[in-house]
Amino acid sequence: MTNPSPKNQSALGARLSVILVRPESPENIGLAARAMKNTGFGSLRLVGVDRLEPPAWRTAVHAEDVLSGCAFFPTLSAGVADLNVVFASTARRRQNFSSLRLEEAVSRLRAFGPPSRIGLVFGNERTGLTSAELALSNFRYSIPQAARQPSYNLASAVLLTLFEIFRREGAAAAETELRQVDVPLPFSEQEACLRLILRKLEERRFLHATNARHATEMVRDLVGRLSITAGDRRLLLAMFSHAGDDPERRG
Amino acid sequence: MTNPSPKNQSALGARLSVILVRPESPENIGLAARAMKNTGFGSLRLVGVDRLEPPAWRTAVHAEDVLSGCAFFPTLSAGVADLNVVFASTARRRQNFSSLRLEEAVSRLRAFGPPSRIGLVFGNERTGLTSAELALSNFRYSIPQAARQPSYNLASAVLLTLFEIFRREGAAAAETELRQVDVPLPFSEQEACLRLILRKLEERRFLHATNARHATEMVRDLVGRLSITAGDRRLLLAMFSHAGDDPERRG
Repeated sequence: MTNPSPKNQSALGARLSVILVRPESPENIGLAARAMKNTGFGSLRLVGVDRLEPPAWRTAVHAEDVLSGCAFFPTLSAGVADLNVVFASTARRRQNFSSLRLEEAVSRLRAFGPPSRIGLVFGNERTGLTSAELALSNFRYSIPQAARQPSYNLASAVLLTLFEIFRREGAAAAETELRQVDVPLPFSEQEACLRLILRKLEERRFLHATNARHATEMVRDLVGRLSITAGDRRLLLAMFSHAGDDPERRG
Repeated sequence: MTNPSPKNQSALGARLSVILVRPESPENIGLAARAMKNTGFGSLRLVGVDRLEPPAWRTAVHAEDVLSGCAFFPTLSAGVADLNVVFASTARRRQNFSSLRLEEAVSRLRAFGPPSRIGLVFGNERTGLTSAELALSNFRYSIPQAARQPSYNLASAVLLTLFEIFRREGAAAAETELRQVDVPLPFSEQEACLRLILRKLEERRFLHATNARHATEMVRDLVGRLSITAGDRRLLLAMFSHAGDDPERRG
C-alpha cells in the first residue's frame, strides 16, 4: 500500500494524545513520556501546567522529543476540543458515570479508525479527575487491580493503557484495514450538542432544581457513549426539537 | 472451594518473588513494590543492596508492607537458591541465551503449578543483568516495545510483567468481582423500549408519514448503539415522557 507510516509504529500512534490533568510530579510527566515512547505514541498534552520542571527531563530517558513536543492547555475543555473521542481513566467507579474495564476500553478505542483523533485523559495523582473533568469524556475506564489500595501510580496507568493498545495493535498489524466508522464530532461540538439537548430538557421540565445535577450527569453519560457524529447530531436535535410543543410558541 | 486465600489475590501471589539485582534508584524499588501490591504480589528480594533509602518509602504508596517484608541477599545466586523456576527479564536479546516474548514467558510461568516457587529477576537500570547473572535463570524474556530506545524503566518492566500475569490469572475472577457492569437488557426489552420511544416521537409528530421509515431506522441505530441497560431505559423513558405535554391530557 501507499501508507507512508513506519510499520513498527502503531497505526494509532499519530492519532492518539495522552492528556495529563494537573499532574503534580514532574517525574511522572517524564515517566509517562518514556512509556509513550516505549509503546509508539508521541502526542502529549498537559493541562493546568505551563512548563516542564527539570525532574521531568531526568525521567524521560530517550523520550526528550515527546516532552519537547508537548502542548500546554489551561483547561481540559480546551485540551480535548479538537479530539473526536475521549477516554478518561479513573481509579474507581464514579456515580452517574458508566465505566469500562481496560480491555473493553481498548476494544472500543480501536474501533474508532482514521481519521478519528483520540484522547486518553489521566487525572492528578492524589485527587484524580473531578466530576466536571470526567464529564468531558465519552468513556470512562478503570485498570483492574488486586486490591482497592493503592491505585496505580499515574505513569503506571499511562503505561498499562498504552501497552494494552500497543500489544493488541501489534497482534492485529497483519489485518491492516481498520473498520471505517463515521468519525465522531470534535469534542467541543459534542459538548455544544449536549448543551442544546439539556436546554430542551430543561424547557420540558425534565430537568429541574432538585434533580439537575444528577440527571444532567446521567444524560451526559448516555449521550457521551454515543460518540455522536454529524448525522447523530442532526437526528438528536430534530428528535428533541419535535418532542413536544414548540417552546417559541409556548412562551 | 476450600481455597482459603482471598479471592482477589492472584493464585501465584504466594509463590512468586520479584528479585531486583543491584537497583540504583530507591524510587524504583518503591515503585516496584507499589506495582506488586497493585497486582497482588508480596514477596520482594533485593540483591546487592543492604538497606532501603527514604525515597523508596516515598514512592511505595500504600505498599509499605511489601518493603517491610523484603529480603536482602548479597548475590543473585543466594537470592534464587530456594526457588524452583527462574525467569530473567532482558531489554534485548542476548547472545547464547534463548529468549521468550513476555506473553510466552507468562504462559510458561503459569504452567508451573504449586508448590513450585517462581522468581522474576530484573537487572540494574543502566547495565541490566550480567551474563553470569542471566545464567542463573531457566528462561529469559523481553517485553515488546515500539522502538529500540528507550528500554522500559525498571519499575515499568516489573509492572508490565506482573500485570500480564495478573490479567491472565484473574481474567475470570476480575469479571465478576472488580467491577459490577450493568448488563444490557435482553434484546426483546431493548426492542420494547425502542418501540415506546418511537411511539412518543410519533405522538410529537417527529415521525410522520413521509419520513417514518427513514427516521425510524435512524432512531433505532442511535438507541441500538447504546446497548441500553435497565438504568438507561428508566432515563430514556423519563426523558421522552417529560419531553412535552402529557399526551393523555392532550387527547
